[in-house]
Amino acid sequence: MTAAQNTVIDAGRVAEHNAQQQAALAADYEALGGMLARRGVDIEKLTALAGTFAVAVPSWGVGTGGTRFARFPGRGEPRNVFEKMEDCAVIHQLTRATPAVSLHFPWDRTDDPQALRELAEGYGLGFDAVNSNTFQDQQGQGHSYKYGSLTATAGAVRAQAVAHNIDCIELGKALGSKALTVWVGDGANFPGQHNLRGALERYLDSMRDIYGALPADWLMFIEHKLFEPAFYATTIADWGTSFACATELGPKAKCLVDLGHHAPNTNIEMIVARLAQFGKLGGFHFNDSKYGDDDLDSGSINPFQLFLVFNELADAAQRAKGGDSDFAPAYMLDQSHNVTDPIESLMTSAVEVQRAFVQAALVDRNALRAHQEANDVLQAAQTLKAAYRTDVSAILAMARVRNGGAADPVGCYRAAGYRDGVAERRPAKAGVSGSGIV
Amino acid sequence: MTAAQNTVIDAGRVAEHNAQQQAALAADYEALGGMLARRGVDIEKLTALAGTFAVAVPSWGVGTGGTRFARFPGRGEPRNVFEKMEDCAVIHQLTRATPAVSLHFPWDRTDDPQALRELAEGYGLGFDAVNSNTFQDQQGQGHSYKYGSLTATAGAVRAQAVAHNIDCIELGKALGSKALTVWVGDGANFPGQHNLRGALERYLDSMRDIYGALPADWLMFIEHKLFEPAFYATTIADWGTSFACATELGPKAKCLVDLGHHAPNTNIEMIVARLAQFGKLGGFHFNDSKYGDDDLDSGSINPFQLFLVFNELADAAQRAKGGDSDFAPAYMLDQSHNVTDPIESLMTSAVEVQRAFVQAALVDRNALRAHQEANDVLQAAQTLKAAYRTDVSAILAMARVRNGGAADPVGCYRAAGYRDGVAERRPAKAGVSGSGIV
Amino acid sequence: MTAAQNTVIDAGRVAEHNAQQQAALAADYEALGGMLARRGVDIEKLTALAGTFAVAVPSWGVGTGGTRFARFPGRGEPRNVFEKMEDCAVIHQLTRATPAVSLHFPWDRTDDPQALRELAEGYGLGFDAVNSNTFQDQQGQGHSYKYGSLTATAGAVRAQAVAHNIDCIELGKALGSKALTVWVGDGANFPGQHNLRGALERYLDSMRDIYGALPADWLMFIEHKLFEPAFYATTIADWGTSFACATELGPKAKCLVDLGHHAPNTNIEMIVARLAQFGKLGGFHFNDSKYGDDDLDSGSINPFQLFLVFNELADAAQRAKGGDSDFAPAYMLDQSHNVTDPIESLMTSAVEVQRAFVQAALVDRNALRAHQEANDVLQAAQTLKAAYRTDVSAILAMARVRNGGAADPVGCYRAAGYRDGVAERRPAKAGVSGSGIV
Amino acid sequence: MTAAQNTVIDAGRVAEHNAQQQAALAADYEALGGMLARRGVDIEKLTALAGTFAVAVPSWGVGTGGTRFARFPGRGEPRNVFEKMEDCAVIHQLTRATPAVSLHFPWDRTDDPQALRELAEGYGLGFDAVNSNTFQDQQGQGHSYKYGSLTATAGAVRAQAVAHNIDCIELGKALGSKALTVWVGDGANFPGQHNLRGALERYLDSMRDIYGALPADWLMFIEHKLFEPAFYATTIADWGTSFACATELGPKAKCLVDLGHHAPNTNIEMIVARLAQFGKLGGFHFNDSKYGDDDLDSGSINPFQLFLVFNELADAAQRAKGGDSDFAPAYMLDQSHNVTDPIESLMTSAVEVQRAFVQAALVDRNALRAHQEANDVLQAAQTLKAAYRTDVSAILAMARVRNGGAADPVGCYRAAGYRDGVAERRPAKAGVSGSGIV
Repeated sequence: MTAAQNTVIDAGRVAEHNAQQQAALAADYEALGGMLARRGVDIEKLTALAGTFAVAVPSWGVGTGGTRFARFPGRGEPRNVFEKMEDCAVIHQLTRATPAVSLHFPWDRTDDPQALRELAEGYGLGFDAVNSNTFQDQQGQGHSYKYGSLTATAGAVRAQAVAHNIDCIELGKALGSKALTVWVGDGANFPGQHNLRGALERYLDSMRDIYGALPADWLMFIEHKLFEPAFYATTIADWGTSFACATELGPKAKCLVDLGHHAPNTNIEMIVARLAQFGKLGGFHFNDSKYGDDDLDSGSINPFQLFLVFNELADAAQRAKGGDSDFAPAYMLDQSHNVTDPIESLMTSAVEVQRAFVQAALVDRNALRAHQEANDVLQAAQTLKAAYRTDVSAILAMARVRNGGAADPVGCYRAAGYRDGVAERRPAKAGVSGSGIV
Repeated sequence: MTAAQNTVIDAGRVAEHNAQQQAALAADYEALGGMLARRGVDIEKLTALAGTFAVAVPSWGVGTGGTRFARFPGRGEPRNVFEKMEDCAVIHQLTRATPAVSLHFPWDRTDDPQALRELAEGYGLGFDAVNSNTFQDQQGQGHSYKYGSLTATAGAVRAQAVAHNIDCIELGKALGSKALTVWVGDGANFPGQHNLRGALERYLDSMRDIYGALPADWLMFIEHKLFEPAFYATTIADWGTSFACATELGPKAKCLVDLGHHAPNTNIEMIVARLAQFGKLGGFHFNDSKYGDDDLDSGSINPFQLFLVFNELADAAQRAKGGDSDFAPAYMLDQSHNVTDPIESLMTSAVEVQRAFVQAALVDRNALRAHQEANDVLQAAQTLKAAYRTDVSAILAMARVRNGGAADPVGCYRAAGYRDGVAERRPAKAGVSGSGIV
Repeated sequence: MTAAQNTVIDAGRVAEHNAQQQAALAADYEALGGMLARRGVDIEKLTALAGTFAVAVPSWGVGTGGTRFARFPGRGEPRNVFEKMEDCAVIHQLTRATPAVSLHFPWDRTDDPQALRELAEGYGLGFDAVNSNTFQDQQGQGHSYKYGSLTATAGAVRAQAVAHNIDCIELGKALGSKALTVWVGDGANFPGQHNLRGALERYLDSMRDIYGALPADWLMFIEHKLFEPAFYATTIADWGTSFACATELGPKAKCLVDLGHHAPNTNIEMIVARLAQFGKLGGFHFNDSKYGDDDLDSGSINPFQLFLVFNELADAAQRAKGGDSDFAPAYMLDQSHNVTDPIESLMTSAVEVQRAFVQAALVDRNALRAHQEANDVLQAAQTLKAAYRTDVSAILAMARVRNGGAADPVGCYRAAGYRDGVAERRPAKAGVSGSGIV
Repeated sequence: MTAAQNTVIDAGRVAEHNAQQQAALAADYEALGGMLARRGVDIEKLTALAGTFAVAVPSWGVGTGGTRFARFPGRGEPRNVFEKMEDCAVIHQLTRATPAVSLHFPWDRTDDPQALRELAEGYGLGFDAVNSNTFQDQQGQGHSYKYGSLTATAGAVRAQAVAHNIDCIELGKALGSKALTVWVGDGANFPGQHNLRGALERYLDSMRDIYGALPADWLMFIEHKLFEPAFYATTIADWGTSFACATELGPKAKCLVDLGHHAPNTNIEMIVARLAQFGKLGGFHFNDSKYGDDDLDSGSINPFQLFLVFNELADAAQRAKGGDSDFAPAYMLDQSHNVTDPIESLMTSAVEVQRAFVQAALVDRNALRAHQEANDVLQAAQTLKAAYRTDVSAILAMARVRNGGAADPVGCYRAAGYRDGVAERRPAKAGVSGSGIV
């Protein structure tokens, strides 16, 4: 964190917090360092690596989420994109792991993108992929998306949806984004509602128009999802469809993997491996789930799965060194915080994803490869488990402190009283909040 | 339909519609009658049986439903419980299969229950189970249900939720209801959020208070659901928990089966058989689903499953004749109509459930039992399939016509222009509709 | 059935059976014909279409199947491929719907393929796709498939598996087959056991060698499966992987869809639509399932799903008329008959698949398209349901009788005493049967 | 390990192994001790607790398992129950965590139970629950279980199955067992095959007969399973049915939870909490799974879930201190080792279960309760995660070494060359092994 940057939490408070944690952290770090050294691992290399990790934060994630049954708002929710940026700045200030924000239009539309960009830069923040929204009707919109957007049978509806996506690209260009994420809820609630093939043909036609509007250095991410809001047949329901479409569209089109968008029992890390192999892994929406698209905090339900995803990413990165050198999938958190302080959840989740990243780096890949070649299944499995079992908390904390963040982001945040402050400055609006529904 | 009843659709229109359908229906009915006679079945008995079928309609079902992503309202949505009753009256007038309405409080609260009751009686409608709502916060409510209602750690929250349920009983008494359905969304989004056992202990304590307020001739239905709105651990998640709680509470407590509230791959008809065997089958919320609690139209996704449920009900009814004579589970539709006219969906769904009821009556139970005893698996299976395969549409239509309904409810409804009429009489409110979220 | 063909069941018995059923069938057929005529449908066209339907029978399906827990053999199980052909001949004789047999090597290997081919031709049977087997070790085999076959890390194992597949092609050529189906159980039981990407790279290398050995007029079918025998990561686990591999390999490689090989809740008919759209739909293994790869009788668990699959096939066939004229996916039954007489199950299943085929032909596609264009969701759904609800049993029976089959295949088969006869002629071997495990 | 006990692995080798690991283990233990002390936790208490942990080993687990597709035998598989005991002795010698063996009859039947008991005692082993087998037919058996055992429609079949279970009790008495585990595969593959309620009524009748034969100090464990070998409807399919049956049968009947026997997405730890609450938690079959009853090594797929199960057990144990003092569920491993050395897998799995036990003991229950009461969801979740994240490997190793086991059981086992030795002493039989199918 350079001196030029504006801090939301008083820097002195952070320093004070870290000073309190210093002794215990140093002792834990040294103890862990010794354990790793006995396994032939240099803790400093891992700490340096941890310091390079970054995952984007979604602007809509700083508001309280909800379900179709209810939304229970929290205190001090941000009421516009500028206040959202302020919350995102807190997350990055304390974790040093979330230097970019992903916006969602029209929720985050502003008449003054330049002001927004400057505000972000002041916080040391940039803009990740922009997201279009054709799953809701907006006030004053000419056509409804009730029966679909990019796949609608009515040409005027499709044209409206295409135009909105192109508008998102324009906004993104003004903000410095380099990618457009397209998720559509289009699909059918009844057998017969859609001609399944016809719907995908219309989708591809619409997407070709959007693709044509992409700047040369942009990517387009196709996000699939098994179900919801469509409950019988979702047009982009699985990675196979996403992959086939990305292939049809061209090299700038890639696939985005949201951890909660798969059928029960799906081996997600294998999907990651497949997309990496075929050159179509665009990025991730990180979260966790037990049932459906639950959008729970990353690593809160199945942390081993998150590790296994990063194990594939580490494998792919290693392979990329030998050729496929542009392997750089986009990382973003995409969660719905219904019962926690969104800032606390996002900080904790960023650290959980970073944890998996560091644990995957701990895997002894040479040993793993040797066990795999020799069909020593048990030792291959234990090689992964040994890395996963390692408690790298001290590494993550040390990397944060060295980068100017907080040893314990949640503890520091609470001590700083940020939520109380915004609760006062941002009185609740009657009715819905400005944060959208996740 | 007696002369005393008020009709919403002009009776002359219905008669005219039926006259147009008369020749084809009579011919189909005769053809089917011949086919059944060759199998030793008397079509008239089935038609008489079909005429006895009844399933309740949920007041909230006549509004357009939605998802957490969006709600796309339809035209002419009812704005209050009186308008909802009008829509429900149409459904019963044309199908003759939905003589009761299930209300949901506080959505349907009225200061004049007597007027509501008289309106209903004028339409030939009664009131089925009343439903409490502690999964949303209502304006002006003292305590929030954000962290639970009947299971909340705070005693004041639990007391408020208990009081609301008792208030629902009072309202139901005024309307002539005989049962309270209790569904709570209480649960946890994170491991650790709840002490899982403690939450259920508090639930049982709260339920004992409500149970104590039940009139002597009332039942209480416990509705379980796997997930949503809680995404890690739902307190009443499965039939096992529902059964254990109903057993703890006493004989008036029974279990309610919603077809969409189970884990993937669950054999629902077996749960029906189990609850019937152990004397705790209270009733049903009919709908269909492919993924989760999709609340799709009954029979639209897996009609054979619906038939198999009714096959168990027919088995239980037959057994009940020999003793357990109060076997009379409550039937209700519980669906979310997001892309169809709710009245059309409810009429079609009522007929689909009635279809399964009649098909189950077609099963040759003596032959089935003989094949089961002899382990003639293939013929046992084919005995069910033979009944299921039979297209009983002409029976259902004839039963409707004879009872004063429409041969083709949707066709008659469209011809009558009811939706256009209410669209004019019920202008859309800006913002949300009064129909609640399903 | 021409005079030149040998019949297994005495033709006189079949004629006698049909004579007994004649009156009832004629009456049912006339009644149904009238109902269809009132809907504008010509029953004779449907009966003619039904008579063209064909689905292959798997040689291994005529033996009793089992699970990892036990196999409970039946009486008179075939002990070699010649006896299997005899059983298959019965199925085709009575159903007239199964004119081809799919062999599995080495289970069905014979030193005299010419004799086998002549036997088959005598029965009026041909040979469908041949199936290789690298999921079991065979006596005397040089290398074990314990740790994989086409994906094994050891080159010698892969070479052995490739050679076996090429041998299958040679055998198939001698028998008149035109396709090779490749299913491998290869995968991992533990995270870490496989380098997920490395395994697929080796698979593709092996498959390229097999592909190179395909005759010009052959196809290769890639069969995916979610799990079992591998329980953590199956190399060809989903249609996405199958599609990507078929694309890599070339135009002769297509994807095969087994109805039981998908994750829970998967929309299989949409996979069918996707593969048809992208030109890679090779064929089907028909069966039914509730939990996993249960291999139950087709249409016994979810008959509506089977109909929806054929609805997609009818859509694809109609589109193919306008250009993509080689749309001709291969149909095969692939079931495990653990508690029924396999011949009875296969006859019944062939009829169930044929039923779905005829019901799909009943769909009013012009009306469906119009409802879809107009977003009349309810009527679009009802258009499918109207076709599905139609009991076409009389059409299927009439088509069989006209083609020389039995009005009621199971009834005729039982009356003919075939099972008793083979039980006498084929004494049970101690230990395992020659039918292989399904 | 007292001097009186026979060791299978030479004790000197173990000592030598431990000596080699001593320095690193001591250093890791001290480092971890420091980290724990800074969190207010005494490592010695945890190590002492770890030393008390015990989980039974299944006799059938020491043979190589398989699937319905194939079994790939390993070297030196045990050919009878005495050789199985030898393998089990190795597992306990090196892990000091598996002092009991669970036998399966008739697989493990011996004419000389006294000799078997003495052999076991010599190894320091006892006998856990005995298991009956009515899911396979045995040579010379009077009636087949093809159509069910305890639920069969034929009374003679049921009587045979009951008699076998009573025989198992007799054998168990001779060996010192104190419980009978009853798992039946009974169920249906087709709708209609079973009268679902009738089957359970027959089950309960049969079970009452077995229950009546239980000695006063025995328990009976009812094991449910969603599917396989029955693929449509399993009679004891879920915990609800198991619970209802255990309640019907009486206080000696309890429910057994196998981690792989649930529907997808099921929250298993909540089932544990429910059964504990209602006094019916009998015990566990530990393993792991991703898809179905995969029987993978414990903790290999979802280690956090295993921890959460033990978190519930720790909660229940704490509550039991205040009254319900006989809370002592039985722990057993139940896995199928298809691609690993079974001894290695069982040792590793015993340690994984022990790991979860120790991690659960690390949970700060006072803090957890306080966060729960205050609805501080994030900190409640983090309280669990803090315990789970702790790498307690050094504690487990120290507990083993102090109890006479090996610091690294697999390393020590491999160095001792045990598998090579038995491979020589136990030549493979042609055909199937004596280990049964898991």
